[in-house]
Amino acid sequence: MEKSPVIVIVGAGRVAWHLGRRLKGKGLPVTQVISRTEERTEELATSVGAVWSTSLPEIIPNPDWVLLAVKDDALSEVAEKLGSYVPEALVTHTSGGTAGSVLSPFFRRSGVFYPLQSFSFEHTPVWSKIPFCVDASTPDDLLFLKKTAKRIGNLVYHVNDEQRARLHIAAVFANNFANHCFAVAEKILDEQDLPFEMLHPLMEETVAKALQESPARMQTGPAARGDVETMRKHIHLLDAYPDLQKMYKLISSNIFGNENW
Amino acid sequence: MEKSPVIVIVGAGRVAWHLGRRLKGKGLPVTQVISRTEERTEELATSVGAVWSTSLPEIIPNPDWVLLAVKDDALSEVAEKLGSYVPEALVTHTSGGTAGSVLSPFFRRSGVFYPLQSFSFEHTPVWSKIPFCVDASTPDDLLFLKKTAKRIGNLVYHVNDEQRARLHIAAVFANNFANHCFAVAEKILDEQDLPFEMLHPLMEETVAKALQESPARMQTGPAARGDVETMRKHIHLLDAYPDLQKMYKLISSNIFGNENW
Repeated sequence: MEKSPVIVIVGAGRVAWHLGRRLKGKGLPVTQVISRTEERTEELATSVGAVWSTSLPEIIPNPDWVLLAVKDDALSEVAEKLGSYVPEALVTHTSGGTAGSVLSPFFRRSGVFYPLQSFSFEHTPVWSKIPFCVDASTPDDLLFLKKTAKRIGNLVYHVNDEQRARLHIAAVFANNFANHCFAVAEKILDEQDLPFEMLHPLMEETVAKALQESPARMQTGPAARGDVETMRKHIHLLDAYPDLQKMYKLISSNIFGNENW
Repeated sequence: MEKSPVIVIVGAGRVAWHLGRRLKGKGLPVTQVISRTEERTEELATSVGAVWSTSLPEIIPNPDWVLLAVKDDALSEVAEKLGSYVPEALVTHTSGGTAGSVLSPFFRRSGVFYPLQSFSFEHTPVWSKIPFCVDASTPDDLLFLKKTAKRIGNLVYHVNDEQRARLHIAAVFANNFANHCFAVAEKILDEQDLPFEMLHPLMEETVAKALQESPARMQTGPAARGDVETMRKHIHLLDAYPDLQKMYKLISSNIFGNENW
């Protein structure tokens, strides 16, 4: 499959959308898109010039590479349904949170093709900056995935299941939870009629520092300096928001290294 | 005090250091630095060409503006000690977390001059991007603080005590807590012998998105999509880190909007 592999994408969500279009853009056309939602499936298929279906048994015969870009909790069901139809294909999922072994019972050749980035429909990914974490059950397939990742991106890492599971948790903290912290800040400012833009420079600085130095070493704020009086005042000011109060208490305790304050 | 106000800075920490040097750089020389730590005090004073002391009663007579850049929990003590020595000066603190009213019992003219940014000795602040939140007990002093903030920075907001207290909490979430999320991610990767640099693109993207759109609206991840199976798996994988486990559980519940999972 060195040249023009026949590619099928299962899924039509954000990851499928961006990967499919990028593959095509890099000379790796997608032949078929299969997903449950008719509208999205057709839209992606049209966008990449592929045929489409909403039914797994309608997968084309003998694809070279099947990319499962579906929700984590749908993966094993999809793999099981698909197993008998594509016995010779390399089947990979794109999930950071699921072991490659979820595929191995159903496919002789399986692997993982996980782009470590948060995709949204609104933003074009910066492919050169996305680390691709790949793994495969055979050396040839690993090589193929590495080459493909290099072709559509730039940063490629061979990451095993255990590492990837932890990496995914780390990504949840660095992306989802950090974003939630921003969302909380936005909410607090909204209610004071202050523009969220006031915090933009601080947010930029926060990340700029974390990229330059160890974030643990660069930690600042009331909890980092053990300013218990300010921490208590903040807890009190959050009385109307028990959820945020708990979050403030817990994260501050983690930073402070002490939960009795 | 339109021209060449006589300025005293009390404090020699990160905020005092950067503000003092910036004031001097913008033609507002600092006449005296007072702080408890001899070494730091002398260093800052030398750097801005000021005299220095480690004793508040040695403050020069009749300064125009006294900037209290000390820890939040030291403010009221410093204000009380200083009160009788500078009855005519405008005295402001630089704290986001303390009411302006902490100064008013001791000074006829008081105010707040709060640069909303996280300072460190290692990094030169980007002054044009730092929002200055100012407040004062008289219109003339408010005008002076606004002008001065505009002179050394660019973004100036008149923010009252109640707003500033909430703003400070929001800043703790957007800066300190987001940074802690990065620090946790770093720790998890360290233990898997994976380079923290793998997460840099994701972190940059996280902030880039949060600056463009409402972070609440852009929330992604297992909790945002209600992927309970992945959330439970992550909790299990964090068994060895009860603190991180609690943090994962709490933040995910806040995002998910449900704590029973």
